[in-house]
Amino acid sequence: MQTSKKIAIVGSGLVGTLLGIYLKRRGHTVHIFDRSPDIRKINFSGRSINLVLSQRGIKALQDVGLEDEILGIGIPVEKRAIHTGVDTVTNQFYGKDGEVIYSISRGLLNKKMVDLAEKAGVEFFFESKIWDVTLSDATLHMGEEERGEWTELKYDLVFGADGAFSRIRHRMQRQSMFNYSQEFLNIGYKELNIPANPDGSHKLDKGSLHIWPRGNYMLMALANLDGSFTCTLFMPHDGENSFESLQTKEQLVDFFAEHFPDTKEVIPNLVEDFFKNPTSYLVTMKCFPWTYSDKVALIGDACHAIVPFYGHGMNAGFEDITVLEQMMEKYGDDWANLLNDYENSRKPNADAIAELSYRNFMEMSAKTADKKFLLQKKIEKWFSEKHPDKWIPLYSRVTFSHQPYSEALAEGDKQNKIMEEILSMESIEEIWDTEVIEHRILDLLK
Amino acid sequence: MQTSKKIAIVGSGLVGTLLGIYLKRRGHTVHIFDRSPDIRKINFSGRSINLVLSQRGIKALQDVGLEDEILGIGIPVEKRAIHTGVDTVTNQFYGKDGEVIYSISRGLLNKKMVDLAEKAGVEFFFESKIWDVTLSDATLHMGEEERGEWTELKYDLVFGADGAFSRIRHRMQRQSMFNYSQEFLNIGYKELNIPANPDGSHKLDKGSLHIWPRGNYMLMALANLDGSFTCTLFMPHDGENSFESLQTKEQLVDFFAEHFPDTKEVIPNLVEDFFKNPTSYLVTMKCFPWTYSDKVALIGDACHAIVPFYGHGMNAGFEDITVLEQMMEKYGDDWANLLNDYENSRKPNADAIAELSYRNFMEMSAKTADKKFLLQKKIEKWFSEKHPDKWIPLYSRVTFSHQPYSEALAEGDKQNKIMEEILSMESIEEIWDTEVIEHRILDLLK
Repeated sequence: MQTSKKIAIVGSGLVGTLLGIYLKRRGHTVHIFDRSPDIRKINFSGRSINLVLSQRGIKALQDVGLEDEILGIGIPVEKRAIHTGVDTVTNQFYGKDGEVIYSISRGLLNKKMVDLAEKAGVEFFFESKIWDVTLSDATLHMGEEERGEWTELKYDLVFGADGAFSRIRHRMQRQSMFNYSQEFLNIGYKELNIPANPDGSHKLDKGSLHIWPRGNYMLMALANLDGSFTCTLFMPHDGENSFESLQTKEQLVDFFAEHFPDTKEVIPNLVEDFFKNPTSYLVTMKCFPWTYSDKVALIGDACHAIVPFYGHGMNAGFEDITVLEQMMEKYGDDWANLLNDYENSRKPNADAIAELSYRNFMEMSAKTADKKFLLQKKIEKWFSEKHPDKWIPLYSRVTFSHQPYSEALAEGDKQNKIMEEILSMESIEEIWDTEVIEHRILDLLK
Repeated sequence: MQTSKKIAIVGSGLVGTLLGIYLKRRGHTVHIFDRSPDIRKINFSGRSINLVLSQRGIKALQDVGLEDEILGIGIPVEKRAIHTGVDTVTNQFYGKDGEVIYSISRGLLNKKMVDLAEKAGVEFFFESKIWDVTLSDATLHMGEEERGEWTELKYDLVFGADGAFSRIRHRMQRQSMFNYSQEFLNIGYKELNIPANPDGSHKLDKGSLHIWPRGNYMLMALANLDGSFTCTLFMPHDGENSFESLQTKEQLVDFFAEHFPDTKEVIPNLVEDFFKNPTSYLVTMKCFPWTYSDKVALIGDACHAIVPFYGHGMNAGFEDITVLEQMMEKYGDDWANLLNDYENSRKPNADAIAELSYRNFMEMSAKTADKKFLLQKKIEKWFSEKHPDKWIPLYSRVTFSHQPYSEALAEGDKQNKIMEEILSMESIEEIWDTEVIEHRILDLLK
């Protein structure tokens, strides 16, 4: 057991609440601050792609006994359903039999997490705006207005779990030797909706993540518990086929009729949703260091915000907590070394999942419509079933294993080189599942 | 002539003052704000590597008739003097006969620039702290304290020339689609001093930039008008041979005796200076966009802070002004398009000089002690004298020409590939200045 500390967490999102549960379990006093009202008392407005919960996230829940409770509000998704044309759907399974990811509503999950944290003894302070932190003594500065009066709240330790636009990081950023980058993608996104059938059933297969890949833009849909789907349209902010190019009702309807004809039946409120819902931005944010002495630490999006295309934002944040828990076990009360080891062991993996997520936009929006790419996936699956000890596909490493992201990325790059060579072989379309190919891959793996 | 505007410049540094002169010349009202006192009235404390003024900077001065005045306080430097061992000095000329750069004191130059700007009609407001800007209407927020009372100052247009830690950029950074990065080098620097001889003469050749290259650290010296040299020690913050490793007087004296034995005579106040002067940080800062509508624009270090190893920080900032001047000529009162063209044409060049500057640390600290590298420079010089139309060395492109930095970088990379091939030829040390080599280079250039 560690010596009990008074710990503040800024941010009552998914990472903040789960971290609260872990810290409480170790005997600390935990206060969670959030500038927003209690999410359980408001009508949570979407503006968020549905979450995907996978193995890394599940493990962090499992270790505090919350797995069943959370999976109960998730929908198992076993494959991509790739809508290449009207009525043409190609299925691409994520893993082996039984390997699934879970579609889960951010709002629902966050409400549940706040409930669970409260039950565990975490104290919440909603509508409490933290504007600044004094790093040297873990003092929070709270007030109604940024330029108004502030009160000071002194803690032993402060965690910044306050997301991509973290105020805690904002203060750290003003130190020498603090590296920082924020890079916006020219791709934005907008939420649309596929309502449930009158009988409450889903209009599309709920066990699939649906993609309509169209090159530099795409539509995506993930099932909700109530029979609906949350749809997300990803496209460039400007240029051809962009949000900017869809200004009028006519432009929008024509665009969908031309590029997504099979969605006409299932997205009845296209025009209303499109012009009502905001267009959101996608940013990759990196920084280092993540901690200040034994006083302040960043976690989750606050230190590694990534684009959503691998579905790993929450999973990476939850894995931060798993690593922090290992460090608490290892270092006990030596918080300075504990936090130092946490940031150093976690940083390369945060960078790797950022890179993987960035690359996955091209994979989802363009490559999934490409025959060569689908063949590659088929060969990989076939070979890995024959030699499960020799070939774990990159997606499986990232999503169904606990291998550090950085190793998964490195292995994936090696595999890609091998597959490039295989795909360049003559008549590969005909001979892909023959002994010749099997032996060639085995050779290349040596 | 443009329609007269009320323009504020935040920052009375080198770029801010020269920009003021340019804007004044076009008939605008120009107010320059600075949080510091009038540099002419204080004892300017160094903490700055001596400046190097070269062709790009000179051109910007020339165009407003200030060239002679400024060169009058500079010292021509024609070569690197590379101190590889005791009494072993290798000279490496920067360019062709008569091509020189100018060593110039930042303090002296800045004082002169404020004088000249004032004479031109620019109004200065010193000890005036600008904390924030409202982008949409070019309003500055000024006050004694960041959290105290502020007053508003409304302008038609605001320039942020407030350096690497710009408050103007800080506000822009909080917008969506604003890309930003700050990356600190693990190399820090500290100023030391070589005083003048009793008769006022220089202890070392004043026409040389002196380097003591030692791998991952180095000492550098540039002459001042008063007979002294400003020395700068660059070394890692921590690890072997680092600032951290030099904690005591004994460690320092032993270190200099071992690695810079020939400086013992010329740096008499080593111990005092070393422990009195601060260790400073080196950062590369990039961002985009640089402007907001026709209301706010960044210039100089505020939008592209670079490490000092190419001696181009001021020159790049002055060239921003040259480009801005071209845009004012071209666009007249259309400030929105003027600023848009300015940022787009300038950004790739700012990125290129950042890259070149970063690379030059390795060139100066390690490669200048490397025989192969010195041979490469010799071959390049020899070949470019034979074929001045076919080969301009990278350093000359960057320093003695006005070719955009991005083109210079691309050409330099091509040349490096060719030289790699040349240097790998058998007995190159013996045959480097023969027809065989000349024709091989000509072939490779095709």
